[in-house]
Amino acid sequence: MSSHLLSVDSLSRDHVDHLLRVAARMEPIAQRRQVTRVLEGAVLGNLFFEASTRTRVSFNAAFCRLGGSVCDTTGFTFSSMAKGESLYDTSRVMSGYCDAIVMRHPDQGSVAEFAAATHVPVINGGDGPGEHPSQALLDLYTIDKEFTRLGKRLAGAHVLLTGDLKYGRTVHSLIKLLSLYAPMRFTLVSPPGLEMPSQVIDRVVSRGHRVEQRDSLAGDFGDLDVIYATRIQKERFTAEMNESFGGLSRDFTVDRAFLDGRCNDSTIVMHPLPRDSRADANDLDTDLNGDPRLAIFRQTDNGIPVRMAIFATLLKVDTLIEHDLRPVRWFVPPSLGVDDPAL
Amino acid sequence: MSSHLLSVDSLSRDHVDHLLRVAARMEPIAQRRQVTRVLEGAVLGNLFFEASTRTRVSFNAAFCRLGGSVCDTTGFTFSSMAKGESLYDTSRVMSGYCDAIVMRHPDQGSVAEFAAATHVPVINGGDGPGEHPSQALLDLYTIDKEFTRLGKRLAGAHVLLTGDLKYGRTVHSLIKLLSLYAPMRFTLVSPPGLEMPSQVIDRVVSRGHRVEQRDSLAGDFGDLDVIYATRIQKERFTAEMNESFGGLSRDFTVDRAFLDGRCNDSTIVMHPLPRDSRADANDLDTDLNGDPRLAIFRQTDNGIPVRMAIFATLLKVDTLIEHDLRPVRWFVPPSLGVDDPAL
Amino acid sequence: MSSHLLSVDSLSRDHVDHLLRVAARMEPIAQRRQVTRVLEGAVLGNLFFEASTRTRVSFNAAFCRLGGSVCDTTGFTFSSMAKGESLYDTSRVMSGYCDAIVMRHPDQGSVAEFAAATHVPVINGGDGPGEHPSQALLDLYTIDKEFTRLGKRLAGAHVLLTGDLKYGRTVHSLIKLLSLYAPMRFTLVSPPGLEMPSQVIDRVVSRGHRVEQRDSLAGDFGDLDVIYATRIQKERFTAEMNESFGGLSRDFTVDRAFLDGRCNDSTIVMHPLPRDSRADANDLDTDLNGDPRLAIFRQTDNGIPVRMAIFATLLKVDTLIEHDLRPVRWFVPPSLGVDDPAL
Repeated sequence: MSSHLLSVDSLSRDHVDHLLRVAARMEPIAQRRQVTRVLEGAVLGNLFFEASTRTRVSFNAAFCRLGGSVCDTTGFTFSSMAKGESLYDTSRVMSGYCDAIVMRHPDQGSVAEFAAATHVPVINGGDGPGEHPSQALLDLYTIDKEFTRLGKRLAGAHVLLTGDLKYGRTVHSLIKLLSLYAPMRFTLVSPPGLEMPSQVIDRVVSRGHRVEQRDSLAGDFGDLDVIYATRIQKERFTAEMNESFGGLSRDFTVDRAFLDGRCNDSTIVMHPLPRDSRADANDLDTDLNGDPRLAIFRQTDNGIPVRMAIFATLLKVDTLIEHDLRPVRWFVPPSLGVDDPAL
Repeated sequence: MSSHLLSVDSLSRDHVDHLLRVAARMEPIAQRRQVTRVLEGAVLGNLFFEASTRTRVSFNAAFCRLGGSVCDTTGFTFSSMAKGESLYDTSRVMSGYCDAIVMRHPDQGSVAEFAAATHVPVINGGDGPGEHPSQALLDLYTIDKEFTRLGKRLAGAHVLLTGDLKYGRTVHSLIKLLSLYAPMRFTLVSPPGLEMPSQVIDRVVSRGHRVEQRDSLAGDFGDLDVIYATRIQKERFTAEMNESFGGLSRDFTVDRAFLDGRCNDSTIVMHPLPRDSRADANDLDTDLNGDPRLAIFRQTDNGIPVRMAIFATLLKVDTLIEHDLRPVRWFVPPSLGVDDPAL
Repeated sequence: MSSHLLSVDSLSRDHVDHLLRVAARMEPIAQRRQVTRVLEGAVLGNLFFEASTRTRVSFNAAFCRLGGSVCDTTGFTFSSMAKGESLYDTSRVMSGYCDAIVMRHPDQGSVAEFAAATHVPVINGGDGPGEHPSQALLDLYTIDKEFTRLGKRLAGAHVLLTGDLKYGRTVHSLIKLLSLYAPMRFTLVSPPGLEMPSQVIDRVVSRGHRVEQRDSLAGDFGDLDVIYATRIQKERFTAEMNESFGGLSRDFTVDRAFLDGRCNDSTIVMHPLPRDSRADANDLDTDLNGDPRLAIFRQTDNGIPVRMAIFATLLKVDTLIEHDLRPVRWFVPPSLGVDDPAL
């Protein structure tokens, strides 16, 4: 692994396996049974030039749980970039202040440009329609962990990706990561105009996986292992798309009726979140709340150990942590969410 | 005490007494003579969906002084709620990242809805016209501490609440807490249309306290122990109120003339702050600055030990702290504020 | 040194020398070879009522590297000042929460007004066209460090200040600090209307320095030791200035041609940053990136040890730190920026 994490494309199977193993070793800290001080004195620059409470807080908390401190920046208003500063200058200046930098930016390629100006580890926290590698890694980690719990294996698994497969960068990155593993079967379901880009599909097929594309959720999914539903990324639509696309129809909704009627007892449901809970959203219904197959909150929980693993690996403390652990002294509820049976 | 702090209504006299005792034990840390590391590794989600520098920084600093780390969020712009995420989802996701959550939100009931989705302790930092229990607790703690200093007792005390008693949620919560104690005498002074809601008054009266309502500060207050003045909450007014209400007249101003002429030497003056220092504000005059009876800054100072006590109690470290104390090593000015004689 | 740092005017030569010595002792921490915990439990209030990512993060990181915690506030929206609170009240309230306060504010004099209400150390992080003393100190520290590296002495040095010398507060403060030292030669180059104020020049001259004013960079600078270029501060222009001033002409640009053709091999180039990298900016060209004479990133790097020295001195832990040092355990890249040979 290079000194940055910018794209899943730079990750070999060995890198990915290493990160998943380190993430598993972070679980006692992420689940708040132990604390470490290994990054004490280190400073994270958490630069979010685009809104994202979830991802920002997740990176922030992960760094804190390693013992480090975090400087947050949100929005462009408070940025010297508004005064015409280049990414090169911002990057070089931040390198003098921080030991690692997470950056989210609306422009594709901007985080890579930023990273090129520094040797301090830079993590791409999302660059517009580009990449969001930590999300893909936590998605893969979730599938792996859920499969272990269910006694399943990746080889031969059937994975359904549904929703906005064109603008949803998380599905691009996830399918690339999964394609590093033993042959699987992917079913891709999206409304017309929001299909997965063909170069992504070609790459997956070239690695020996089976890919089927459909334009609806009709039919039987009795052998399905994973549903990965996504939100329509209207904010990334072209003007033309905005005019022609009326919204996701109810046919695309993953809900209890779909899961009970046409999937099986061990089909897990994932979503990169946020899911739109307004009545006309139709991506992932709230009637699955409390169903053990709904893995979306276990998935976000996994953001902590995975992001801890990314920091620990880039800052080369992944083997030091086991020598710097103490028990948690405060009260941790046995179940953090009210209806999450598997946590 | 339940696992959350959402309203003073859920607090029994025993709960309140416990919190005040724990707060007193936090004083050496709050006054910066000692430091603790008991919450090292813990993460607070400090979610302010409505502006409040004071309350946000106070919770933040209180958690830091217990040894924990804080992730701040301010405003809706940076929130995934803007993408249609429900409070349920936000709550469940944040539970995976944080060990305690403080939330301020403009909508009454929103914090309780948020708390219902998690077992991680949630503290209501103000939900619009609803509740703000930590403010009421620090107000009560202030009265208790000032009375101890002055050799007074709560039983039989005369408390004046003045200003916007309709929309000022802090006075509702404070009078409820005070009503748990030995019988007192309350005088309520507000302009027409901004009276204390009758159900609050009924409850106080039913517990054996004397309540008198007036529409001006005219008359003698020679036996007064506490003045609690409040700002007009114009931001919560209905359109109708906005039209009819011309502002607080000078007659409602608590100033040195009122205190010297019609109160006594030991009448303390409190205010939830911010006080409006513009010329036409008329809630609490700045001519009392430097007067030892002005307790408003001792009151805000008390926010630290009280909020530390809330965190320590909810996270069950209130008895551990005394075993994890070290002296402060940096310089602390003997008097932190310039003119505060009693600190 | 008083208990605040509001202006370079309050600093004697002894104060400045002390701060530079303490900053030098902070280098092992700033360069991430060692960590300290000396401010553990201390809280910094980092109040930025005007945008400045760089300065805010720099103060934040400096305090964290001393072991403390930071509460950030950015913008007026989130401030109770929007509800009419006075600087006096805000100051007094923050004193109860924080052990040191950094404040940036658009209004000249506002930080001094804020500081007058508290004994907690207050550092002026920039008050509009007023002062920005930590920037001047890090500029002086940079010149001193670069001169040591180059075997030069301050006495007799030739320093060029160019750009907006009227509104650029950093050049006012820097020349005042430099004037405390052995006689030097200053050349001031600015477009008409943006000259250095005459009272600043008079002060420098009265202390025995040579000052020459010009309206262009024409001519030979073969004996030049330091170029300090500045950005045009359009945001501080009067309406009249905005109308008459067309922008910095290309003649004012400090670039490789100027440095190679008319300066020398050891002329260092400084700039308070951000530099405007847009094509028509003309303050400091990017064609110097990678040139060892370009000291602008070593300059921003120096913000950390200098701000650590300010905190350590005001909080009186400057002599304690050497007894509380541990080695860094995480990986630090040998060169933090990609092209900075002298780091």
